[in-house]
Amino acid sequence: MVKPIYDRFRDSIRSEIPVALATLIEGPRIGSKLLVDESGFSLGSLGGTNLDRVVKRDALAMLDAGTSEVRHYGSDGEARQHDLSVFIECHARRPHLVIFGAVDFTRALASQGKLLGFRVTVCDAREVFATRRRFPMADEVVVDWPDRLLDRIGAELGPRDAVCVLTHDAKFDVPAIVGALPTRVGYLGAMGSRQTHEKRVQRLLEEGVTLKQLERVRSPIGLDIGGRTPEETAVSIFAEIIAMRTGHDAPSLSDGEGSIH
Amino acid sequence: MVKPIYDRFRDSIRSEIPVALATLIEGPRIGSKLLVDESGFSLGSLGGTNLDRVVKRDALAMLDAGTSEVRHYGSDGEARQHDLSVFIECHARRPHLVIFGAVDFTRALASQGKLLGFRVTVCDAREVFATRRRFPMADEVVVDWPDRLLDRIGAELGPRDAVCVLTHDAKFDVPAIVGALPTRVGYLGAMGSRQTHEKRVQRLLEEGVTLKQLERVRSPIGLDIGGRTPEETAVSIFAEIIAMRTGHDAPSLSDGEGSIH
Repeated sequence: MVKPIYDRFRDSIRSEIPVALATLIEGPRIGSKLLVDESGFSLGSLGGTNLDRVVKRDALAMLDAGTSEVRHYGSDGEARQHDLSVFIECHARRPHLVIFGAVDFTRALASQGKLLGFRVTVCDAREVFATRRRFPMADEVVVDWPDRLLDRIGAELGPRDAVCVLTHDAKFDVPAIVGALPTRVGYLGAMGSRQTHEKRVQRLLEEGVTLKQLERVRSPIGLDIGGRTPEETAVSIFAEIIAMRTGHDAPSLSDGEGSIH
Repeated sequence: MVKPIYDRFRDSIRSEIPVALATLIEGPRIGSKLLVDESGFSLGSLGGTNLDRVVKRDALAMLDAGTSEVRHYGSDGEARQHDLSVFIECHARRPHLVIFGAVDFTRALASQGKLLGFRVTVCDAREVFATRRRFPMADEVVVDWPDRLLDRIGAELGPRDAVCVLTHDAKFDVPAIVGALPTRVGYLGAMGSRQTHEKRVQRLLEEGVTLKQLERVRSPIGLDIGGRTPEETAVSIFAEIIAMRTGHDAPSLSDGEGSIH
């Protein structure tokens, strides 16, 4: 059984199909393997139908998040138990979070992104603010204009990725949103009060953005949980990113009417 | 003006009244101060009505979270700008997160708690699981039964604190919930499928817990955002903790009917 699993594993990696290989590393059947790819196809077994089902579910979620780790289960796949250890090795690009604006909220959002397994890029045209010293948790800190960065990386963005515009300043916000709209990015959110948002919408319409396109922009950004500190706001933004990615309906600040933040 | 501010600051700290002192550390009026206490009382000024209002709002949120930091503003309090730097020094006990159960989800929840400024305690009676090596991010890892830990620390828990029960095992869950209910803890959540929850409710009723008391237990735990990995689930739990603390209504998993996690 191991040969076909490794063949398929190799082929998936060569073809850049996101794939996870789960290996039992603690328990009675050490070394048994289950391969799971993004489409839900699986091959092999860890020794039980329920166990395989639970590990497959977890592997699919981890493929989405792009993380690898050791998970523990009961002998029949129970989540609370610790009879078995399974190393789930995911081969998938990490999701990418691009934050425009090197402001106070950026630090918390970048740290939160790292916790969730994102590759994090912080971009601001103002070189005194966009420094590695202020954002040591980011994977890259880019001093450039949003439209120029998006010209370079926009084609790589896909449904698992996110663009967050935190500048509150039309000079940066507008080119960031205009640049992100033609990409396939799964989440596009812009921070600001409703007043800032209305002014920004005006500017975007003047730039030729359509109302249909504007529906993709989550603004005010984040779920309506009353977050006030940068860290709380980062939770509300990622709660919205996760809810969108999993297709869960949750009341977003962008659907409400009252004052925010 | 500085003398009465320092007097009040000293008196608040001595009386254990949570208090924040904001000091302008970059900008035209360096050294100017604004003192804000938990009740919303303020004294002093940083030089402008709008600036004082915005800093006061931020200081109150930071008192809630128990964090101190440097924040940046425009000269009239604008959030996006960086003309002024203000060090907001909060004297308030950090909120306390007590996690029962040293399971795979605990690591992510503990890391998330640290990001949000919580003091984090992990407690499990099974000493092979409750180790510092598995939870280096926690402030304390306690090997004990939930009821015994809550006997010791329950009286200190208040509205800003949270108890999360992640064990999925009635042997630990029931004493943790029974022990937390008489405390003033603001958030009490218990993980598990709806089926686990129903069995647990049965056991809790047998222990003499009333239906009214059970309303305090958020289970299934977390907001309904479709989180699957431990990190995503941690975001959904903290989104619920923040929403409860700020009085925001959001659809919780505990209000829904469908399958979860």
